[in-house]
Amino acid sequence: MLDEKDWFTEVVDTAGSAFSLRIRRKLHAEQTPYQSIAVYETEHFGNLMVIDGFTMLSSRENFLYHEMLAHPVLFTHPAPRRVCIIGGGDCGTLREVLKHPDVDQVWQVDIDERVTRVAERFFPELTESNADPRAQLLFDDGIRWIRDAEPASLDIIIIDSTDPVGPAEGLFTADFYRNCMAALTEGGLLVQQSESPLYHMDIIAGMVSDLKEAGFSDTRTLFFPQAIYPSGWWSATMARKDRAIGDFRRADVDARPFETRYYNADIHAGALAQPEFFRRRLGGSAR
Amino acid sequence: MLDEKDWFTEVVDTAGSAFSLRIRRKLHAEQTPYQSIAVYETEHFGNLMVIDGFTMLSSRENFLYHEMLAHPVLFTHPAPRRVCIIGGGDCGTLREVLKHPDVDQVWQVDIDERVTRVAERFFPELTESNADPRAQLLFDDGIRWIRDAEPASLDIIIIDSTDPVGPAEGLFTADFYRNCMAALTEGGLLVQQSESPLYHMDIIAGMVSDLKEAGFSDTRTLFFPQAIYPSGWWSATMARKDRAIGDFRRADVDARPFETRYYNADIHAGALAQPEFFRRRLGGSAR
Repeated sequence: MLDEKDWFTEVVDTAGSAFSLRIRRKLHAEQTPYQSIAVYETEHFGNLMVIDGFTMLSSRENFLYHEMLAHPVLFTHPAPRRVCIIGGGDCGTLREVLKHPDVDQVWQVDIDERVTRVAERFFPELTESNADPRAQLLFDDGIRWIRDAEPASLDIIIIDSTDPVGPAEGLFTADFYRNCMAALTEGGLLVQQSESPLYHMDIIAGMVSDLKEAGFSDTRTLFFPQAIYPSGWWSATMARKDRAIGDFRRADVDARPFETRYYNADIHAGALAQPEFFRRRLGGSAR
Repeated sequence: MLDEKDWFTEVVDTAGSAFSLRIRRKLHAEQTPYQSIAVYETEHFGNLMVIDGFTMLSSRENFLYHEMLAHPVLFTHPAPRRVCIIGGGDCGTLREVLKHPDVDQVWQVDIDERVTRVAERFFPELTESNADPRAQLLFDDGIRWIRDAEPASLDIIIIDSTDPVGPAEGLFTADFYRNCMAALTEGGLLVQQSESPLYHMDIIAGMVSDLKEAGFSDTRTLFFPQAIYPSGWWSATMARKDRAIGDFRRADVDARPFETRYYNADIHAGALAQPEFFRRRLGGSAR
């Protein structure tokens, strides 16, 4: 039995599974107007941020998630200049986006400023690029911000949110996706974290259907490991306005002027491979 | 806190992590001459087999592991006819191997007959091909069996073992790999489960080094999700005698006369993508 004193545990009721990390101490806890935020010092995963009882990220493995949310979509667009991140208050995705020299402006729109302040204190490596003049940190309702965005003003929208319950629920709807369509430039791309392929196929299938209903021409799901999230296997779904997702800029990936820890061109191509059960459920060209 | 009555938990001490499955009841427990075997009925993962306290497989997700241990290596060899499985007593890998019509003979060599008997009772879907006349189930010491095997008599050796502690320790040594080299035909291939890329890079690096020391010409590691194993991310390492691993038979994968649930040609190619941290540690051609 795991003693609550020594372990943080996240239970997934619908899957009858749980993942635990051994902790040394609780470093921080607060209730914001939107959610509860806690930070633990773990034994082997560095610091761990928990929101409303769900693991968000740890120092050890967040690179997998942040790299896969940022680089595939940016290297799929031919020339991404204006990028918006909805959610992403820990700033890890922002840091990856800012590694792309062609990006001119990035808006990060998280409803809860406290997530960013807590990240600055306990995950300083993730917020190290926040002073970049190309970055604007806004603390606002992302759903409203996208609705009010200038039409055809964004090349990329990255939706880096919590699960589709609570504050993030409205980010998983056809209405929201329609507003994203309007805000995107021609050929623009959206990417959204889309939960576990093993646990949440209904959520992924619903997202894909809502994205199509909202008018996106093409979708493609990326798969990657994510140790501290339910099932250890995670996904992100891309959608493109006006055209097929198409190939990514492989030569530019190979020549990228920055370091990554997980992502490279082969990983990008491999993440696009659709498992057979996924292909059968959603169709698609994979064999 | 997870009540022991309702949850099976596997703790990974060296990673300070734990994975738990909610159980309805214990279906079986025994101590064999080699290890302890337990079977639980879980809430959402079907039946769960546990050996010496480590999760081995569940009804829900074993397809990921068994397909990835069998099909990539078999579709890499141009014409695999004689295959041996060391370990693999649950017979799930054997079932996948027997799906290949070109395979003439398969020897499954597990030291502990009780694993197979328990699988027959609680995982009958995995043992459904055991009566295939091409299959020989041997209950013997795999290390000795390989040492005594006729030279150049096997096209493929699949090492489907527990972790490199206890009975399986001798399966992770250069001595064992040298005997595998002798038993393999020209261009023959070995594949071995090689633990978690996130937790066990030292084990993978050691294996690769031992395989080269034993005379294998080339190695290649496959990556795939595995929810109930530590970190949820797993690997298998292939090694080839006398030549490079090379391409796999993509057209034959596309035309395969059997169903899979995870594996297909794109998944095969994708599983070969080396994460950047892995490439940096072990070298290799991935970008």
